[in-house]
Formats: sequence, structure tokens, C-alpha cells
Amino acid sequence: MNRESIQDWLTQLQESICSQLERADGKSKFVPDAWTRPGGGGGISRVLTGGNIIEKGGVNFSAVWGKTPEAVLKTMNIIGEQPDFYATGVSIVIHPHNPMIPIIHMNVRYFEMSTGQWWFGGGIDLTPHYVIEEDARHFHRTIKTVCDKHHESYYPAFKQWADDYFFIKHRNETRGVGGIFFDYLKDESGFTKESRFDFVKDVGLAFAPLYTRFMSHNQGLKYGTAEKQWQYMRRGRYVEFNLVCDRGTKFGLDTDGRTESILMSLPPQANWTYNYQATANSAEEKTLSLLKKGIEWV
Amino acid sequence: MNRESIQDWLTQLQESICSQLERADGKSKFVPDAWTRPGGGGGISRVLTGGNIIEKGGVNFSAVWGKTPEAVLKTMNIIGEQPDFYATGVSIVIHPHNPMIPIIHMNVRYFEMSTGQWWFGGGIDLTPHYVIEEDARHFHRTIKTVCDKHHESYYPAFKQWADDYFFIKHRNETRGVGGIFFDYLKDESGFTKESRFDFVKDVGLAFAPLYTRFMSHNQGLKYGTAEKQWQYMRRGRYVEFNLVCDRGTKFGLDTDGRTESILMSLPPQANWTYNYQATANSAEEKTLSLLKKGIEWV
Repeated sequence: MNRESIQDWLTQLQESICSQLERADGKSKFVPDAWTRPGGGGGISRVLTGGNIIEKGGVNFSAVWGKTPEAVLKTMNIIGEQPDFYATGVSIVIHPHNPMIPIIHMNVRYFEMSTGQWWFGGGIDLTPHYVIEEDARHFHRTIKTVCDKHHESYYPAFKQWADDYFFIKHRNETRGVGGIFFDYLKDESGFTKESRFDFVKDVGLAFAPLYTRFMSHNQGLKYGTAEKQWQYMRRGRYVEFNLVCDRGTKFGLDTDGRTESILMSLPPQANWTYNYQATANSAEEKTLSLLKKGIEWV
Repeated sequence: MNRESIQDWLTQLQESICSQLERADGKSKFVPDAWTRPGGGGGISRVLTGGNIIEKGGVNFSAVWGKTPEAVLKTMNIIGEQPDFYATGVSIVIHPHNPMIPIIHMNVRYFEMSTGQWWFGGGIDLTPHYVIEEDARHFHRTIKTVCDKHHESYYPAFKQWADDYFFIKHRNETRGVGGIFFDYLKDESGFTKESRFDFVKDVGLAFAPLYTRFMSHNQGLKYGTAEKQWQYMRRGRYVEFNLVCDRGTKFGLDTDGRTESILMSLPPQANWTYNYQATANSAEEKTLSLLKKGIEWV
């Protein structure tokens, strides 16, 4: 299995996910935007705005190559040489209108270097504006099933990795109810490149059914001005995570990635209220109490 | 001149600025919020929201001390010891309702260590949603006058420092029309602690007259929905600068500063539109053309 076949598969995944989301939304279409990278490669960003259900959603594909950025070499302790790299992936963030529908993020990616090193990475995590416990359980059950199909160690390890990764340290809260996060999946400990890719494929394929279910199930849930205000504040936290904590965003910006594609993850609107305190026993307070690491949703 | 006298002066500056802004706003008052720092010291944040002119404004005072954070020692190449530090300052960001009134930021600060080292730092910069060239010229003329009173080298050096500092690399644009930025002002090259402090005081005292002038002069300028939308996008850039580029914000968050006080600089509302392109020959396009380094406003 070569990188072209991985790239082709990811291209198809992007198209398939966009079709399924468009069908579930029923109004707007993803608008494609092709771009090229001066150092090599490029991508197609697909952005949907003003849908029935989706306010702003981006499904990005990219395949880029060239000299490995210094930032990557540093993390790998490679000094004195600059091998070539190749990276391809699909990255998704969806911001819905209805605050009772969660924000979702998914990413699957493949990286290789002319040194012969390669690995897969990715993750999927859910950020409800209001945590609905049954939704969080369904989400985790579904991705646990995907993980368990490939290895029993995957879900517990990658679930904890997500808890640690999707954490806003300066707020002492998790971004949402977590999910899975994984990186540097190589051919070691009995895993082959094929078995790693099969897992990554199943994560990618799980996305659309999972999210379109939330779109259809929760779209009917009522909300008012107060819930919208809370949504805008939670989106503010999403902005804080992406700009302050997210290594992927930082890496993209530091290595002169395409800014508009990297920052398509930012919400259409976010608000900040100084020192907001949730009312005692409110739905907002309950949500905050569930934004912590280590909750076993399954 | 000891640190207590600097701290006292800054406390009075905070009060004086809040009074002047309240008088110019004519409606809302700054609400004080005192906090203490577990490691030593604390501060008073003063936040005004929902004014006639100011939508959200923060004027923060703090005086903190304790073991010097590793992050500071690293920048100074101090290894193996951990001296005590003391830092005091006033920090301001004002977000007005009217997009024809600029966002403004000002900071003055004093830092010392038990090693005997000390310095002043600070800056003031203007971020118009729409660049009005006469306003930018007035702003720079005023701060140049303040600088020139103390040393002819100040304005050119600190203006360039601001151009370089208030720059959003991933957007290839400056945050606004700049101003001055300075740091590590010590007793060297003929400057004394008194002369440095006198300069910093004059920067602090210049703030309220400068900004209340914009408040009164520009409040009558008309705007509509399109200008508000543009304002929300420009505020999005402000968020990007503060969370991605600003060393002060990063330092505060990394050293467990008080998050709500650090992030009071974020706007009440910010929007992101994927790949927005200004219309040819529009006021928005003109503004973008002026968001670059090296413009000589005086």
C-alpha cells in the first residue's frame, strides 16, 4: 500500500462525508476551494455555510510535501539533515445553528519521510454546548466499537489521550466530552501498515453516520436566546482551545500552512463575557461539571 | 524611588483612567473585581460593559510577586537559581460599539528581581476597524510628542518595535496602525530609573485624553449592518493576535495568571467568515492596504 492509495482513499472520504452531511442538512452545499502550497502539494477545502442545520462546516483534504519542517524534525530529534516529507489528511469541524447539537471535530492523517519513517494519526471528539449524557454515551459507545474491532487496547489508550489532548489548561476544563486521539501509529507490536490503515479508515467512515444522527435527533430540541448566548460563549472556549492549545493549529501556522484552511475550524460567531458564572443548578452548570478528564462514558 | 511608589502611582493611574472613561461614556461604570494570586500578590480588574460608547472595556491593575517563573528565567539565560520577582502594571483594552471608533490597548509595567535587575516596559497601540488616516496621524503625533519630551530616540525605536510586535504573521497584516512598544528600559546609556519612570508615567497619562477624544469625535459617525459585520471580523483578528501572537497573553496563561483578567482583552463578540475577500475599492479594502509595517504616520 503506497501513499497514493492512502491519498485516493482520503479524497473519496472527503467527498462521501460532504455528500452525507449535505443530505442531512437539506439546504446548503459544500463549496470547494482548491489551493496549492508553494513548497509542494495543496488541497481542497470544502466549506458549507448557512445550512438548515449547519451554520458553518469545513471538510478539508490536503496532500503536501517538500522539505520536512524544522518543527517536525525537532520533535523527532533529527538534527543536521532535512529529509523530505509527505503528509495527507482529512480534517473536519462542524458548527451547528442549534445549541442542542454538538460541535464535532474529526481528523485522519498519514505522514511519511524520505528516511522511511511513516505513521498514521487522527482523532474524533465531541463538543456539546449542553452535555446530553445519553448523546455522550452513544458517541463513546460507537467509537469504542470501532476501536475494539481493531484492538482492545485502542479505545482505553486513545480515549485517555483525547482527555489529555482536548484540555484547556487555562480554564481547567476539557473542550467537550472527548473521544479518541492517536498519533505515531506505526508497524510495531504486531501491527502492520495495513492494519493501522484499516483502523484509520473505520474512524473516518464512522464520522458521517455519527454526526448526521445528532443532526436529525437533536434538530427538534427547542432553544431560546439564553441557549444561543451560552453557545456563543462555548464557541469562545473552542476558539481558545484551537488558538492556544491545539498543536495542529500551531504547527500549521508556524509552518506557513494555508491560514484560511487551518482557521476554518473557528466558529462563525463567538462571544466572551467577563467572569461569567453559571447559575446554581442550571443546565449550564451541569455541563461545566461534566467538562473534566476521566469520565467513563461507556 | 522604590517599588511601592511605582505601585501606588499605577493604582492612581487605573482610577484616573476609569473616571475619565466613565465620564466620556456617560452611562456605564467600571465594576471592580479584586483577586489574589496564590503565589503572592493580586490585582483589581475593572470592567465596563454595555456603555453608551464602550461595549466592553477592561482596565486592570496588578502587583504580583514570588519565585520568578521558569519562563522568565529562560529568556534571561538564568539557570540553576530561582530568584524572587516583583511585577506591577496597568493593562487596558477597550472595545467600542461603533465600528468607526478604534479598539485601543495600553500597558505600562515594572518588573524587578531579587538579583537587583529591574526594568520598565509597556506600549500603546490603536486598532481601527476602519482606518481613518487623520485619526492615525493624530494618534502617532500625540505619542511622538510624549516620546520626544523624554528622548528623541524613543519614538522611532518604539514605533518600529510596535510595528514588529503587533503583527499577525499568519495573516501577513499588522493588528492595526501600531503605536509604540518598549521593554527592558533600564538605567543605562545615561537614563536613570527616574527618567525611565517619568517617560512611562507620561505614556500612562496620555491614554485617557487620546481615547476619550476618539470616543467623542467618532461617536457621531454613521454605520450600518455591513460595518458591524466588518467590525466583528476585525475583532476576530484581534482574538487571533492575542491568543496566537501576544507574548504577554502567552506568558500570563503559561504562568498560571488569572485567566479572566488576562482574557478580558477579548471582544464581546467576534466573527469568522471563511476566506472573506474585500470588495475592490471599498473602505474595507483600503483599511487592509494600510495594515502593514513601516507606514510613517507623522
